[in-house]
Amino acid sequence: MGHMSKLVKAFLPLVAISLPLMSNMVAAKQFKVSSQEQYSKTLKQVEPGDTIVLADKVWKDFEIVFKAKGTKAKPITLTAETSGKAILTGNSNLRLAGEHLIVKGLVFKDGYSPTGEVISFRRNKDDLANHSRVTEVVIDHYSNPDKFESDKWVVMYGKHNRFDHSHLVGKSNAGVTMAVRLNTEDSQQNHHRIDHNYFGPRPILGSNGGETLRIGTSHYSLTDSFTIVENNYFDRCNGEVEIISNKSGKNEFRGNVFFESRGTLTLRHGSGNLVEDNIFFGNGVDHTGGIRVINGDQTIRNNYLQGLTGYRFGSGFTVMNGVIDSPINRYHQVENARIENNTMINVDHIHLAAGSDKERQAVPVDSVFANNLIVNETDKDNFSVFDDVSGIEFNNNIRSNVDNPALTKGFEQQSIELSEADNGLMYAKNAPQSVGVSKDLKVLDKEQTGVSWYAKPGRELDFDQGSTHTVKNASELYDAIEQAQSSDVIALEAGEYILDKIIPLSKTLTFKSASKDAQASLKVSRSTTFDIHDGGNLKLQNLSIDGEYAPDSAGNAIIRTSKIPMLANYRFIADQVQVSGLDINHSFHFFDAGNRSFANDIRITNSSFRKITGDILRLDKEMDDLGIYNGEYITLNDNVFESVQGALVKLYRGGTDESTFGPHFSFNNNQVISTGKGKRNKYKASLYLHGVQVSDVQENEFLDSAGLVVEHTVGEPQTLVKSNNFIATPKIVVKELNFPGEITATLIDNNYQAAAKK
Amino acid sequence: MGHMSKLVKAFLPLVAISLPLMSNMVAAKQFKVSSQEQYSKTLKQVEPGDTIVLADKVWKDFEIVFKAKGTKAKPITLTAETSGKAILTGNSNLRLAGEHLIVKGLVFKDGYSPTGEVISFRRNKDDLANHSRVTEVVIDHYSNPDKFESDKWVVMYGKHNRFDHSHLVGKSNAGVTMAVRLNTEDSQQNHHRIDHNYFGPRPILGSNGGETLRIGTSHYSLTDSFTIVENNYFDRCNGEVEIISNKSGKNEFRGNVFFESRGTLTLRHGSGNLVEDNIFFGNGVDHTGGIRVINGDQTIRNNYLQGLTGYRFGSGFTVMNGVIDSPINRYHQVENARIENNTMINVDHIHLAAGSDKERQAVPVDSVFANNLIVNETDKDNFSVFDDVSGIEFNNNIRSNVDNPALTKGFEQQSIELSEADNGLMYAKNAPQSVGVSKDLKVLDKEQTGVSWYAKPGRELDFDQGSTHTVKNASELYDAIEQAQSSDVIALEAGEYILDKIIPLSKTLTFKSASKDAQASLKVSRSTTFDIHDGGNLKLQNLSIDGEYAPDSAGNAIIRTSKIPMLANYRFIADQVQVSGLDINHSFHFFDAGNRSFANDIRITNSSFRKITGDILRLDKEMDDLGIYNGEYITLNDNVFESVQGALVKLYRGGTDESTFGPHFSFNNNQVISTGKGKRNKYKASLYLHGVQVSDVQENEFLDSAGLVVEHTVGEPQTLVKSNNFIATPKIVVKELNFPGEITATLIDNNYQAAAKK
Repeated sequence: MGHMSKLVKAFLPLVAISLPLMSNMVAAKQFKVSSQEQYSKTLKQVEPGDTIVLADKVWKDFEIVFKAKGTKAKPITLTAETSGKAILTGNSNLRLAGEHLIVKGLVFKDGYSPTGEVISFRRNKDDLANHSRVTEVVIDHYSNPDKFESDKWVVMYGKHNRFDHSHLVGKSNAGVTMAVRLNTEDSQQNHHRIDHNYFGPRPILGSNGGETLRIGTSHYSLTDSFTIVENNYFDRCNGEVEIISNKSGKNEFRGNVFFESRGTLTLRHGSGNLVEDNIFFGNGVDHTGGIRVINGDQTIRNNYLQGLTGYRFGSGFTVMNGVIDSPINRYHQVENARIENNTMINVDHIHLAAGSDKERQAVPVDSVFANNLIVNETDKDNFSVFDDVSGIEFNNNIRSNVDNPALTKGFEQQSIELSEADNGLMYAKNAPQSVGVSKDLKVLDKEQTGVSWYAKPGRELDFDQGSTHTVKNASELYDAIEQAQSSDVIALEAGEYILDKIIPLSKTLTFKSASKDAQASLKVSRSTTFDIHDGGNLKLQNLSIDGEYAPDSAGNAIIRTSKIPMLANYRFIADQVQVSGLDINHSFHFFDAGNRSFANDIRITNSSFRKITGDILRLDKEMDDLGIYNGEYITLNDNVFESVQGALVKLYRGGTDESTFGPHFSFNNNQVISTGKGKRNKYKASLYLHGVQVSDVQENEFLDSAGLVVEHTVGEPQTLVKSNNFIATPKIVVKELNFPGEITATLIDNNYQAAAKK
Repeated sequence: MGHMSKLVKAFLPLVAISLPLMSNMVAAKQFKVSSQEQYSKTLKQVEPGDTIVLADKVWKDFEIVFKAKGTKAKPITLTAETSGKAILTGNSNLRLAGEHLIVKGLVFKDGYSPTGEVISFRRNKDDLANHSRVTEVVIDHYSNPDKFESDKWVVMYGKHNRFDHSHLVGKSNAGVTMAVRLNTEDSQQNHHRIDHNYFGPRPILGSNGGETLRIGTSHYSLTDSFTIVENNYFDRCNGEVEIISNKSGKNEFRGNVFFESRGTLTLRHGSGNLVEDNIFFGNGVDHTGGIRVINGDQTIRNNYLQGLTGYRFGSGFTVMNGVIDSPINRYHQVENARIENNTMINVDHIHLAAGSDKERQAVPVDSVFANNLIVNETDKDNFSVFDDVSGIEFNNNIRSNVDNPALTKGFEQQSIELSEADNGLMYAKNAPQSVGVSKDLKVLDKEQTGVSWYAKPGRELDFDQGSTHTVKNASELYDAIEQAQSSDVIALEAGEYILDKIIPLSKTLTFKSASKDAQASLKVSRSTTFDIHDGGNLKLQNLSIDGEYAPDSAGNAIIRTSKIPMLANYRFIADQVQVSGLDINHSFHFFDAGNRSFANDIRITNSSFRKITGDILRLDKEMDDLGIYNGEYITLNDNVFESVQGALVKLYRGGTDESTFGPHFSFNNNQVISTGKGKRNKYKASLYLHGVQVSDVQENEFLDSAGLVVEHTVGEPQTLVKSNNFIATPKIVVKELNFPGEITATLIDNNYQAAAKK
């Protein structure tokens, strides 16, 4: 008791309570702290078995250093007074260093880490944590407001640490959500465990650096990690092409669920890894993938993959070609891969010997692909074989009937009837149990991951789901915008609306004419009218817009995104919109995306654009060639463009990395007249596409206009330009910038004519 | 009293007081209002002679519409409870409509107008104010945070209005500070009066649109305005090349002082204007100008101009050539100009028939230049004559002795002795009083302008004026930054500083080694280290910086400006700084300016830069060619650059307007070795200068490096490349982009050598 009294004297404001459960004679103490100063003082005094309790409150700018030394029997704990009620905000973070530490129940939100990590299992490069556990923590949208300021949310160093039952959601800036580092010997052969975590939605980053979990780096990839990743739920983790990037050896991925996540579990570097009992539910979402196999001694068994649409390196299942004598950061050959008892239902693409090219010549060897069940609704073969796969022994696989299969040996084709088992998965009624996943494969319940006291996010709100506000003049319009909830509709009665304010949009709103037959007319009179901010999504429907009252200066735009770099991705839809008279000065644009803005979806349909001195869609702001771009899906269908001096679309994706699926571009059934010929149209093109991954330009008519310029960079872009009429318009220009040679665009059935027929 | 009671009932919270001075039987009433709602209700009830008093408080988001009808004898007044204590913030503004209104004592700050105007003499385009006065208002840094979102602070419409004794300071976004509009008949021949205002410092905008006062527009410039601009003080109004842009007829500019203001009073359009009794004090500041004469019937007399350095259209005095049959927006011929009794002391440039070119062929005619006194300290002729000036009759002018004067007739040369008169101006002892300004010319006292209750700004704070904080590790460094005041010095003791946080800089700070002989070493470990925000100015002195611990990702930078567009201009100085090892990944830059950032001054001297994968200075973010650019004075002298893969400087000023003086570029006595040859260096140049107005590249050695690329656009750029050694380095490339033809750069004494001599 003498010891206790001294402590109480030293920390009068602290509460020190003997814990009821003591493991030996010295009482484990619990210290409640309410300030950063108290925390620092307390930390110096804690002994094995003690607990520091952070008071329930908002802790701002608290950089917690939790350095202490517990024992296996008596760890030292840092926890919240009530789980979820001690909230770290502003520039807070947490560093652990020492032995046998436990952190529990903290929430990080409303801010971002001042350093490159939010939770770090080290204090600095020489002072690591071992045998420590972080459990039941929440990191919620704790993203650096500068989207391309890279940081990581959880980084494991040291050995024998565990990160579990935590909830990580909404990382919107660059940098992997969670990483295991092997950068010093003290962090190798680490035997970490990462389990029962909820990895919630991560939006498309629009650049490299959006992985959800990475284990190792190429530099240390020949080192074994012995990390176990089990029973985690990956919910819409769409950051980039790799959901999990494995870059070390002897790791195990077991019992995880990947739900509607774009990308794949990639065995990028390192060998001897096990991928077992995982479930992939793509639900037909674009670019959902499964497992990508590279390197030696990988085992992939008893995984269930369904409804995956991904292709190429993002396929439902991929076995890569390697590079002969590969440098450590390229592709090691697949040797001794065991691919067994997996079920693949409606997996659109299975690519074998993928990536075969002049560099990647080392085909898979000594490998087995056996007892897998492959079921497709269509009769199209989902296997693509890019090189010699005789090094893979195909055995006892069963698949549904396909026409002209690439592979026959080792596959039995049959008409397969599926039925749902108690675990919710589909099994073939008429195939032996030895093929496909086992009957007792457990499907992890999302509710068993993360924490019970913090809600998991549902679906994103769409347009037009809320209530309608009918307005009859500009003043009412501004009021309605103020009062509207996200997903509401502002219905404009017929008449003129002189818009003399910029509308900062942080909600999902639709603006449309109240009556289908009497269009409201927007007379814009500021440099911009709709200014899309974080959280804003805009739909314009059945409206006319003109620029007669706009300021007489260059560079106006009807719509733009915030000039402050955005963290949230946005959507913009225009349907049945008549735009004209944007010509009071030069460079008057329709839509001007800001630097570091990213559209998930832009869609312009059934609209007309006439007499415009600028561009229609400016999505070319990322000129630093770091792989960053401005929009994922850009669609313009069934429109008329006439006398637009600038370009219809400038879409630029620079850089040479292959970490993104987009941009995707569609331009179909449009009429383009006297367009793109202004002297300020830099690229001299009506459509300028640089580094676009998927382009579809069909059934358009171009009359007396600038042509198409397509610049291919990397990533095997798919460009189809088909059945267009080009009248008094230059021929399509396709450039292969990074791999000079034959052009890879598909140009068919296009018709060229010198002048319009009379 | 019955009337009063009714009122009191209707507006219980209002205070209605009979004013002691009544002009007839009905009492003038004073209504104090404390809420926007009260204001609206009160406004409906006011009668001629009444006053609405805004309570002393901060009024947020108050869009005041002051529509009422007073009479000449009984105006209706809107005022503050105490002048300067009713403060409009957030998105507030003021619109006047009606007759005989007075607004007094309000302050606008901490916000910006939600519309395109802060104070407008109209409610909408059909509802104007006449016979109204706005007096003693303050608008202080009430700038749209988006610098290139254009708005105006005061716009006069209607007729017979007055704007006086007001204080307008710190407009940092685009758009003229004050404008008189003539856009409808009801605003023409307006007889407005603008007097005794304090137009405080306006920073360089770095683009068109930074005028302080504009009267009319080209469209209505053949219309008379009859506006009087008198006794205003223009203090460091540096927005762009025109301080005052006169664009209408029959205006008078009298008794104004222009203090250290870059640019000129420009009679841009409109005829029959009078410029009289004005004082221009340039004090030798760069680009200070005087008066520019265009159009017919202009009178310029009894003006005092001293210490003006400007040249070309920004000269101390300019008479332009016109365009024959000029369109309304070009240059009308100077006819019947009376330029008399002006004093010009140390005015570096007087340009006559300026702008003579293929288009501007109409020389000045029927004009007089008489009784002017021209005194220069040097014997260099300050007159430049660009075309036939026989249409100007030179009479009885006296000037100090110059060698080989361009003009002799009408000038008497003599050695002039100056002495200061009681009014503070200099007069020639030995010249007749009929020459130069009159003895009784009054110099307006700054304190007689604006308001007495709001301080006028002093000089800007420079580096190194404050106290010194000595630190010995990174943690102390961060604390010191937190605690430092602007202008303080952070002195780093010798040793290593691992910088794992981004330093957001909103102060003027110097970082330097504590000892001259023992350099502190900064080990940066974030994507960026110094992040210059609004209000931040950075000086680095005697430090070493390396990138060994920086994140292994592309696009790092040691210093950058905020990714949020900046409103404040900044300065950056590096002296005796050793930078090396910025090569952990590609595109690692030293200094990366953000979009919409503007440096007043960047100066790198006595420093070395080695092994860098990116660029040294990136000032090329304004690619939309709207005349916006990233820096005014860029200087690199006495440095060594070795193995820099990117460019040393990318400086881009796009657009074809001629509204800015800069950018200015100096690059002298540097050694450049193996630089600019990285494959990602887009322009393939070690120095890339586009649209730079003044370039000075002398006494450098380039060895095995990429060359210089200079792209001239508009504005008669002055490029001097002299006495450089180019060894195994390509020849200088100069392109004339807008006026193809002979190159206008001066390239002399440059030495080319195929390889280094052994």
